[in-house]
This record gives sequence, C-alpha cells and structure tokens, in this order.
Amino acid sequence: MQKPDWIAFDWGTSNMRIWAMSASGTVLGEARSDKGMGSLAPDQFEAALRDVIGAWDHAGVPIIACGMVGAKQGWIEAPYAAVPCPATPEEFSTPDAGDLDVHIIAGLSQADPADVMRGEETQIAGFLARNKNWDGVICLPGTHTKWAHISADEVVSFQTFMTGDLFAAISGNTVLKHSVNSEDWDNDAFDGGVADAMARPERLAARLFSLRAEGLLNGMQNGTAKARLSGLLIGAELAGAKPYWLGQKIAVIGAGGLSALYVRALAAQSAPATQVKGDAITLAGLTAAYKRFKG
Amino acid sequence: MQKPDWIAFDWGTSNMRIWAMSASGTVLGEARSDKGMGSLAPDQFEAALRDVIGAWDHAGVPIIACGMVGAKQGWIEAPYAAVPCPATPEEFSTPDAGDLDVHIIAGLSQADPADVMRGEETQIAGFLARNKNWDGVICLPGTHTKWAHISADEVVSFQTFMTGDLFAAISGNTVLKHSVNSEDWDNDAFDGGVADAMARPERLAARLFSLRAEGLLNGMQNGTAKARLSGLLIGAELAGAKPYWLGQKIAVIGAGGLSALYVRALAAQSAPATQVKGDAITLAGLTAAYKRFKG
Repeated sequence: MQKPDWIAFDWGTSNMRIWAMSASGTVLGEARSDKGMGSLAPDQFEAALRDVIGAWDHAGVPIIACGMVGAKQGWIEAPYAAVPCPATPEEFSTPDAGDLDVHIIAGLSQADPADVMRGEETQIAGFLARNKNWDGVICLPGTHTKWAHISADEVVSFQTFMTGDLFAAISGNTVLKHSVNSEDWDNDAFDGGVADAMARPERLAARLFSLRAEGLLNGMQNGTAKARLSGLLIGAELAGAKPYWLGQKIAVIGAGGLSALYVRALAAQSAPATQVKGDAITLAGLTAAYKRFKG
Repeated sequence: MQKPDWIAFDWGTSNMRIWAMSASGTVLGEARSDKGMGSLAPDQFEAALRDVIGAWDHAGVPIIACGMVGAKQGWIEAPYAAVPCPATPEEFSTPDAGDLDVHIIAGLSQADPADVMRGEETQIAGFLARNKNWDGVICLPGTHTKWAHISADEVVSFQTFMTGDLFAAISGNTVLKHSVNSEDWDNDAFDGGVADAMARPERLAARLFSLRAEGLLNGMQNGTAKARLSGLLIGAELAGAKPYWLGQKIAVIGAGGLSALYVRALAAQSAPATQVKGDAITLAGLTAAYKRFKG
C-alpha cells in the first residue's frame, strides 16, 4: 500500500472506522474495530489508535477524527462551534499523542434552546460537499436524532430529539417490556402511531399505556405494539420538529431501517424527503474537514 | 385479640398490607410484609397469606383483597368490570385456598381508549365512601397515574399515563442518567418544566435532550435537571389529561411527595385540587367492598 497523505477517522461511542487516504481522495486502505470511545479511558486512546493504524506508514501523516472521541468522556474534550456557523468544520483539537498528528473536529453547540452535536456535523459537511449550494433541512436519525437547518453553507440552527434513546428505555425498562418484545413489524400500526401522535402529541404517555391495555384486553400482538410505539415516538418528534421540516427541502441521512421510517412518516405528512446513506457521507465530511485543515 | 369478622387485604406488586376488622369497622390488628405479588409464583400466594394471618383466628372469616394479586401474573386473574360502572366493587374472584375464604376485587377496564386499572378502583371506592355524592375527577399519581371521571357514584371513564414509569426509565436508562442523578430539588425548575410542557407538549423529546446540553454548556445542576425532568413529564401529562381536569372538582389521592407535585402543577393551571392520603382510603375502599360482598 502506498503511504497515505492523510488518515480519516470516525470514532464513535461503540466503534471506530478508519480510512487511509490519498490527497486526491482515493481510499487506500480501510479498517474498523469495536474499540469505541465508550469502552476506553482517556489514556487508552493513543494505544487503540496505534493498534488500528499499525500496518500503515503514518509518519507525519495528519489524522482527522470526528465523533465522540472529542467528548468530555473521550480522549480530549474538543470545543463546540456555536451556530450559526459554517457547515464545514474549521476548528480542531490536538491531543497529546507522541509522533501521531491527530486533529479532532469540533462539535456544534446552540445557546437557546441549549443543544449539542458531535459527529453529525461531519456528516452535514459531507452531504453539503456532495450537494453544492443545498439549502433545506437535514434530519440525522439515531439514538439522538438531529434536525439541522442549512442555509448558504451554514448550520443556522439545530434541534436534538432523544427519540431513539426513549424507544430503547421504554422497550427495555417499563411495563411495556413484555408488550413490545418481538422481531415482527406492522407498517399499519406504525402509520397509525405516527398519525395519532401528530394529532395529539400531548397524549403520548397515555397512548403508551394503552399498548399494554390493548395487549391485555384485545390481544394486540407484540410486533404490532412495537411498531405502534415506534410510530408514536417518531410522530411526536415530527410534531415537535414541524417548524424545521414544514415546507422545506428535506434530506434524511442514516442507516437503512430507521431512516426509512422517518422518510415514511414524513411522506404521510406530504413532506417528501430524500434518504441518503450515512457511511460514504461521513468520509466525505472528513475529506471536507481535511481540506479546510490544510487551508 | 377478638376474632375478626373479616380481613382486609391490599396485595400490591411489591408489598402487602392486611387488617383484621370488626364488622363495625374497628381495626383489630394489622400486619404488612414485602411479599408482593411480583415476588410470588401462583402456587406461593396461599402460603404467603397463611404466614401473615397465622396468628389470627381466621376460621370462616371472609378475606377481601384488592390489587395486583388479581393480575394475570398474580394468584388468580380477576376479571375487569367495564366502565361506566358503579364505583363500589361488585365482582369478586375466589382462588382455591383450602379453608381460606378469599375474594379478590375485580379491576376496571375501558374499551376505547383501551385501559385497565387494578387496585386504584378500591381507592376510588374508599374516597367515595368517605365523600358521599362527590362528583368530579380523581387523580391517583404513581408509576401509572390514573385519572378517573366520577359521576353519580359511577366511574364514567378513566385514563392512565405511564408518567412515573417514564421518569424512572429516563432517569436510569438514557443519556440523562448522568444529568439527573441527585438528591437535590428545585421548585422553580419543576414549575418551568410544567409550564413549558403544557405550552408545547410536542417538544418533549427535544426538551429532554436539552437537559443534557444545559449540563454540558451551562453547568445546569443535576437537582435542577431532575426537577425539570419531573416537571416536563407531569406537565405533558396535564396537557393530555386536560379534558379530565379542566373545570372539574379534583381530588389527588396518594402518598405525600408525588401527589404534592401534581397538586402544585394543577395549581399553576388555576385548577385547585384536594390532596388525600392513600393509606386510610384503601382500607375504606376494602370496607365498602366488604359491605357490598355481604350484600
């Protein structure tokens, strides 16, 4: 393998992906591991990085990293750039890493309502690198789904909904754990949940208990209850995020299943959204950040 | 101790309370244990009951029980009476218990929206036994808070909000677990959470994440975040339960702290509520059920 000109690094909570890159953007090599930020103490990051790039000639090669590696509990706390700000990362933090030339991309913060992101800013930059002069709203579904308003290559504002985190906590740690434990799925139940939550989002906690009661009284199947739970939570989010997406061009960035549900729920509101796979977008964002870093 | 005329039994998920009663309503003896329904297999209930009443002369004495002992996972599945129905229990289930004369009070169910209660119906009956001809709305705060519309000694309708269950799951099993772990409390933060959720209940999942961001960006204290979380969830519930409480006479039945928060949140909506302690109310409800049972 030829010596890389730079190394791109997506270091999240539960795993990491890394690419050896040429200056022109060719991927020379690729690796991944499950040594996510969540499993490492601050003094273990350097060794974990050396493990994964050990076979590559990395002498003097800049390593551009994004994600939770820059969180308070990560390697070094990278700052937040306050929105509104350019969508392409301009600030970097440099941990002490011997001869390794590591630069961690800053996250984004918002003063009011208070909000933060770390990692998604790189996906936003990647999407905009591939879609020049794109104005609209980007939705990044996940444990903490982000909605970002993009105009003139700036992130104007954003809002995080902890919908995925709620889904997991409700499914695993409330009375519903016996009601939604299933591999089955029911699109009609999902659609109904979205519609009900959009119409009366304030009834969420009552509709959740109804899933239990429907099982006891009417034999609702667990796959149906799970899909309805997902629909209720995503529908409540769409009701809250309406100032973001209403009348806007919408891109949904992320892995297949969950993003497809957001696209489906938005379509039911007559809000067409373009779904974009996240993997290549992250690398495009790291590439945009590297170019900015080089100046 | 004189021989009781009947025995009153509140058998919940996590513990049990039992009273030896005279026909005139005098409490002759009292016991409690942590052998709740949740810790017992169906074939262990009889022995658990014999343990706790062993010292009392119970030959031929009717034992009237309420609570989760009558749930699907309990001793015997007691039926549900469908609302609208009389507030004083009229249906009883009799498990096989040798020479013990046990009768478990039926729960309440509602067809649409699907809902169930088991235990709270006895507290409602007890409240009405002590407050003749009372019409209005009863709120029973807890893991699954119940709102019941009472008219002419009937339960007309009810709705369950799993607010307490959500509070526990969110506090213990989401990103907020590090943000709300505190013994402190902040009434202003609670009030602000109630007001914000009442005004825009659809933003709940975003406001929850803001608690995390406020901690990271502005150093919000955990006690403040915890109180605001509680306010957001109770405020969202009040928004959803508004058709119940708006313009109604309101009684809040339950243990001190949580019920006091509901009363406080309702007061902020100019909805005065009377707080009633739950313990004596349960026994009053079992007494009303016993009288109905005797016919």
